[in-house]
Amino acid sequence: MVEAFDVVDLIRAKRDKGTLSTAQIDWLIDAYTRGYVADEQMSAMTMAIFLNGMEREEIRDLTLAMIASGETLNFDGLDKPTTDKHSTGGVGDKITLPLAPLVASFGVAVPQLSGRGLGHTGGTLDKLESIPGWRANLSNEEFHQQLKDVGAVVCAAGSGLAPADGKLYALRDITGTVEAIPLIASSIMSKKIAEGTAALVLDVKFGSGAFMQDPARSRELAETMVRIGKDAGVKTVALLSNMNVPLGLAIGNANEVRESVEVLAGGGPKDVVELTVALAREMLALAGQPDADVEAALADGRAMDTWRAMISAQGGEPDAPLPVAKESHVVLAERDGVLTTQHALPFGISAWRLGAGRARKEDPVDHAAGIDLHAKPGDTVTKGQPLFTMHTSDAARFDRALEALEGAYVVGDAGSAIEDGGPLIAGRVD
Amino acid sequence: MVEAFDVVDLIRAKRDKGTLSTAQIDWLIDAYTRGYVADEQMSAMTMAIFLNGMEREEIRDLTLAMIASGETLNFDGLDKPTTDKHSTGGVGDKITLPLAPLVASFGVAVPQLSGRGLGHTGGTLDKLESIPGWRANLSNEEFHQQLKDVGAVVCAAGSGLAPADGKLYALRDITGTVEAIPLIASSIMSKKIAEGTAALVLDVKFGSGAFMQDPARSRELAETMVRIGKDAGVKTVALLSNMNVPLGLAIGNANEVRESVEVLAGGGPKDVVELTVALAREMLALAGQPDADVEAALADGRAMDTWRAMISAQGGEPDAPLPVAKESHVVLAERDGVLTTQHALPFGISAWRLGAGRARKEDPVDHAAGIDLHAKPGDTVTKGQPLFTMHTSDAARFDRALEALEGAYVVGDAGSAIEDGGPLIAGRVD
Repeated sequence: MVEAFDVVDLIRAKRDKGTLSTAQIDWLIDAYTRGYVADEQMSAMTMAIFLNGMEREEIRDLTLAMIASGETLNFDGLDKPTTDKHSTGGVGDKITLPLAPLVASFGVAVPQLSGRGLGHTGGTLDKLESIPGWRANLSNEEFHQQLKDVGAVVCAAGSGLAPADGKLYALRDITGTVEAIPLIASSIMSKKIAEGTAALVLDVKFGSGAFMQDPARSRELAETMVRIGKDAGVKTVALLSNMNVPLGLAIGNANEVRESVEVLAGGGPKDVVELTVALAREMLALAGQPDADVEAALADGRAMDTWRAMISAQGGEPDAPLPVAKESHVVLAERDGVLTTQHALPFGISAWRLGAGRARKEDPVDHAAGIDLHAKPGDTVTKGQPLFTMHTSDAARFDRALEALEGAYVVGDAGSAIEDGGPLIAGRVD
Repeated sequence: MVEAFDVVDLIRAKRDKGTLSTAQIDWLIDAYTRGYVADEQMSAMTMAIFLNGMEREEIRDLTLAMIASGETLNFDGLDKPTTDKHSTGGVGDKITLPLAPLVASFGVAVPQLSGRGLGHTGGTLDKLESIPGWRANLSNEEFHQQLKDVGAVVCAAGSGLAPADGKLYALRDITGTVEAIPLIASSIMSKKIAEGTAALVLDVKFGSGAFMQDPARSRELAETMVRIGKDAGVKTVALLSNMNVPLGLAIGNANEVRESVEVLAGGGPKDVVELTVALAREMLALAGQPDADVEAALADGRAMDTWRAMISAQGGEPDAPLPVAKESHVVLAERDGVLTTQHALPFGISAWRLGAGRARKEDPVDHAAGIDLHAKPGDTVTKGQPLFTMHTSDAARFDRALEALEGAYVVGDAGSAIEDGGPLIAGRVD
């Protein structure tokens, strides 16, 4: 590699609020991936980007450079359109599970490469691994064959996609630069674009249980990602959705699969159905079916059929019993009234402490652990009624899991204001 | 070591314009010195400090923490006051050479631990090493004995003083965070305070040949350093001096020793004498001799006697011939007029390219290389008159050395404005 630039000059340029050129960003990311630019230099650069920002062109260039650092998938040989969904993550967010087969039931391919959970937000692969026999790792051939036969695939992303992003994300994580919008947006979009989808719908969360609490910042993130998608030739739309309250009634892994199957059977909690349907409509519109009758596919079993095919194709047994926790603890309402509060973040942390999530990448998860909610904000409750049930394989975990919920739920007088942060879907960016 | 803090929390605090506590800074510097905090974390922190600044208390704490990372010298057993000088570096800045013996001739101890040059600014040790036999490295006993006997010592600083500063400076150098005032000020002051002097006079340069070009920034640096000194119990004063034009007529190593000896003999260029005298007055005032007759000590040979004793004590031969370059090249005036311009930075770079300076720490210097100026801004010159002479051991170096001087000196019409940036001493901070 020819040394075209001096990395210290580039750091100083960004430090002094300058704009980096396409050639500079290409060089920087290539040199960092090859180890020619050191971690300590890249961390100074990312802090400068954090504090001084990036222009639209720089963010596009950064995304494209990270894509170019590795392989990219290509679905040109497929005889159906591709469309994908990405969520910025939340508590009880199992939407991919009903959504991928629902959209695929319309003859659209959904190549959904997913990750595992870390911290209080769960991971789609962890949830699906509750299903006996199901495996996340597919060969390239299996992946393409399943896309062709079933249409929906949810599997582990290979490490060959955007390796620069993987390296940079690990660095940002230990140097306090995770939350910068240009870096978050380019990180997410580099992986999604490398996956080769023609269209992408983003579910950008805001609220206490989201990565970005502030609705204005989450809108900025959505706008930045949609611009990157457009600049890279991928049809991209984002919905802004409310994560102040857990999504649905199940927080965990096996219980979230159960809830997803209820939705695929035409039932399930209202909010999970609403978001699934809204995202499916957006995905199908981008795939050329703006008038698809999404609710009908849930009601008449077409989505469920695709789900069963998708699970079976990856070795899973759709009818096998899901794991059930050995220990459970029910929390009851201490008074009559209305449930006014159910903060997503503490419920996510509590489920994590019960064993549903992991603190380090290497840790296993307890698929049966988690929380089942029996009431949602706005529901009238009576004294002694169960508010939620905690599940774990280790009863010693209840204490710290309960500790996390201090002040997280409130039963108030009838007529009290409900703290749910407003409507589930608060906006749309295209 | 107990992990009292999470370094990512501290980085995020500074990133978000917070203030770090004494305990946090102590922990950070100790953990960084021990390798518990990684370089990539410290570089993100220094970029955050660069962009968001530090409060007075934080700068004091950082300085004290870097001092605490190593050993400190102590002159309590000495029967005379100690006073030291530090210059932020410039082109032709040989002031330490006449200044240390001049001040010591008044019975004051001057323990001057110095460095080597890097880039276009020379190093005091490199200059003194032109003197046959002189050695920069002294044992602790030799150092104390010479302070007692001669009063003046100029020698290499041991690596045991403020090792955290050495580690941090090397990191800042490759991560684009050298120029931050809190970091520069704490770096300089940590070493100077660790050296155990009771009083310190700072020569803070501004102008084209200085580390800080902008006079306002150099004043801010001076104020920051003086505050640190006071906060740490060291009597500290700063002069702001002009480095738009090289100091004196010699730029190099052996030629700067020659010029220094001229000053000690009661002669020498006006600007070198003026700055030497001004700094000596400040040092002597801090050491309790506000009325010392400094000029008399230069005129009557007392300063020269101390110089000879100082050089001899470190193995040098004060009367030995200094190295002379094999090759020289004289640049003549191309017209009659007045020398209006003589920019310090290009002359410094040119001397460096002739071999007087080094690009990397490991490189040797050519002690005979450099530039002798024959005219200074404001001087009337006639066509064909020598303007300056370049010296080197390698004639192949002349081309690039001359290239550096493109536009660096101008002969204008009589009466033209002189571009010298104003008076030599532009201010004082105490």
